[in-house]
Amino acid sequence: MSNATVSIITIGDELLIGQVIDTNSAWMAQELNRIGIQVVRRVAAGDVWEAIWTALDQESQAAEIVLMTGGLGPTSDDITKHLLCKYFDGTLVLHQPTLEHVRNLFVNLLKKPMLASNEQQAYVPDVCQVLPNPVGTAPAMLFQKENKLFISMPGVPFEMKQIMQASVLPLLTARYQTAPIQHRTLLTVGIGESFLSERLKNFESQLPENFKLAYLPNLQTVRLRLSAWGNISKELFEERFGWLIESVGEFVAATEDTTIEKAVAALLKDRKLTLSTAESCTGGYIAQLMTASEGASLFFKGSVIAYSNEIKTSLLGVPLSVLSTEGAVSESTVRIMAGQVKERLHTDCSIAVSGIMGPGGGSEHRPVGTVWIAVAGPFGIITKCLQLRHDRERNIKITAVMALDLLRIHICGKPLDNLV
Amino acid sequence: MSNATVSIITIGDELLIGQVIDTNSAWMAQELNRIGIQVVRRVAAGDVWEAIWTALDQESQAAEIVLMTGGLGPTSDDITKHLLCKYFDGTLVLHQPTLEHVRNLFVNLLKKPMLASNEQQAYVPDVCQVLPNPVGTAPAMLFQKENKLFISMPGVPFEMKQIMQASVLPLLTARYQTAPIQHRTLLTVGIGESFLSERLKNFESQLPENFKLAYLPNLQTVRLRLSAWGNISKELFEERFGWLIESVGEFVAATEDTTIEKAVAALLKDRKLTLSTAESCTGGYIAQLMTASEGASLFFKGSVIAYSNEIKTSLLGVPLSVLSTEGAVSESTVRIMAGQVKERLHTDCSIAVSGIMGPGGGSEHRPVGTVWIAVAGPFGIITKCLQLRHDRERNIKITAVMALDLLRIHICGKPLDNLV
Repeated sequence: MSNATVSIITIGDELLIGQVIDTNSAWMAQELNRIGIQVVRRVAAGDVWEAIWTALDQESQAAEIVLMTGGLGPTSDDITKHLLCKYFDGTLVLHQPTLEHVRNLFVNLLKKPMLASNEQQAYVPDVCQVLPNPVGTAPAMLFQKENKLFISMPGVPFEMKQIMQASVLPLLTARYQTAPIQHRTLLTVGIGESFLSERLKNFESQLPENFKLAYLPNLQTVRLRLSAWGNISKELFEERFGWLIESVGEFVAATEDTTIEKAVAALLKDRKLTLSTAESCTGGYIAQLMTASEGASLFFKGSVIAYSNEIKTSLLGVPLSVLSTEGAVSESTVRIMAGQVKERLHTDCSIAVSGIMGPGGGSEHRPVGTVWIAVAGPFGIITKCLQLRHDRERNIKITAVMALDLLRIHICGKPLDNLV
Repeated sequence: MSNATVSIITIGDELLIGQVIDTNSAWMAQELNRIGIQVVRRVAAGDVWEAIWTALDQESQAAEIVLMTGGLGPTSDDITKHLLCKYFDGTLVLHQPTLEHVRNLFVNLLKKPMLASNEQQAYVPDVCQVLPNPVGTAPAMLFQKENKLFISMPGVPFEMKQIMQASVLPLLTARYQTAPIQHRTLLTVGIGESFLSERLKNFESQLPENFKLAYLPNLQTVRLRLSAWGNISKELFEERFGWLIESVGEFVAATEDTTIEKAVAALLKDRKLTLSTAESCTGGYIAQLMTASEGASLFFKGSVIAYSNEIKTSLLGVPLSVLSTEGAVSESTVRIMAGQVKERLHTDCSIAVSGIMGPGGGSEHRPVGTVWIAVAGPFGIITKCLQLRHDRERNIKITAVMALDLLRIHICGKPLDNLV
């Protein structure tokens, strides 16, 4: 068993000025974990010669493998390739296969003229091994120095992922005999981190060495990840995970590393039920969550986004009298919306939401954060009222999570007093 | 003028195992930039004693100010507070105002019993200055060592943001006389990074010292950020930015740091036009983009998400004959969808999309990535066909960007041959 460790360096001023969120390193870490390689550090450096140089020095001390992304574009602020050439004592040379690939990309795929700056991308340090970029112009480059491995990849997520899958992961798997790590994750909805922790006191205090439980909170969900390092048998690991499920109890929404929308999608497919939504305050957020994954057409038929009251009446049959007496954000309104969208779109289940997401629009009677949810399905219609106290973005996302969980509970036929 | 620099340390195993995407540091960097403080490094470390200790050592060498987030939760994997206590030679003591605040949060706001683990959060190192956390239980802590400043904040984005705004940013502004930095950003849609770069060769070659142009590509958009350091006059800076706008030409979608959805929203509000959408393959993605920001009800009325063909017919009046002869992904279908949703929802403009987002569902005649877009508005209906070649997620997002840009162009009355 080896303890191969990785440090990830992401390069680009845009990461330090905060105009781009780094999603690359999270994805890379997940993939590396799967092959038993641990990420020990992640560093972001700007497009600045000394900063990148220092990062290379420090990170090759911190880990055996240094993976870099970014700074390889055709534009003038990208200096990484020249720096790597110097760092590893090389000279830039034309890499013929890359030139042909880039030319081919432009002629056959992009159907645009190739520019001089694109041709530059076919020049690589003569001391590197080129790892081809099947979907972009800048290839990845592998270097070695004092027994440490360095791989530089483009920062475009789509290109980086392709290179990781086609070249980097197989190469690392072959080269490093990896330490066995087991992970299993479960999804909880509707219980806070500290209440979960209280519930799991007994479980955690009896965790054997080499086991670790991590809390991964995100809005109304907490994912719990159980990990074990070394030669723990699959049976022992599963037994512990079973105990974890039992300890969490009714808040378990799924026993795998998933999201509430994927858990609900799996449930609908499994029970052969179809879904529609009638959304006001979420503006289609629930619909797009449910259609973000492949195969959505198996269970999702459509939605009516009734952002204005006029459309709640015209397309969802909410009587003007209900809107004027009880309001758009009321139990009666979402009840009608859920029933009507289910009927008009011929689905087995439906979700309806109406609320005040803020920051404006609240009143004393119905403050910002008031949300009514209705779920219609095989067992009738159930409703729930939320009082959220976050910003608009979080209020929308939490509403979606709670609405989907209400549907899950409804379909599973669990008693409503489990709701917290 | 001082050159105050910051290094950000984000703490948590979840960041290294890739189960959480770090959005905190991007937000922090943006806010720090606004007050003229430069982020020079960003490091992520796990919940591991030595890793955090090393990060504190290294980052306080790299910058004057070290901002930390995460690792302060009430659960057992959070070790940061104990480590900070040791690192700065302190002892944990009860901080009475924090205890009262935590108790108050539970009694009055959460209306739940307070747990022993929550009470623990009121203990802080006696060598720190407490910065209150108005919206959570763990306070922030400020330390000083050898003229360097260290501030540790909770990792929950909502709490971190409140603490930054209420305490950290005012404190840093007062303490460090900041270097003047000017930034302006423009948004381009529909032109690739390397083609832009070619267009801007002349502009870039004549950029004065202390100016920098950064390319921030994201799907079909590239934001261009012009920065200037030091005592550059506002007039000179604006003149250069004007030249940049001119050089980019017809691809400029907005002359500020914005997104295409916000640019379209501003345009609709400005022209007093209302919008509806009829979405198939995007499943509500465009609608939720348009309603994500406050004030959407001023221009957005609603949508029909017609994911199944049945709903394209029943709610959008697409004749069965059109669906069977030309297909759901066709110019005729989106034309009817756009016209019908505009009429039935009584809006001035509408967007309709239908396509094959993948990975499955393609055919030889209509491969995965085929998308038809129609925009209806004051000047009739225009359509556009895309051939995308990315993964499902990117295909959906690119479709939304291109559809919104088509609407923008239509409203602005620009000629269609500007489209690339």
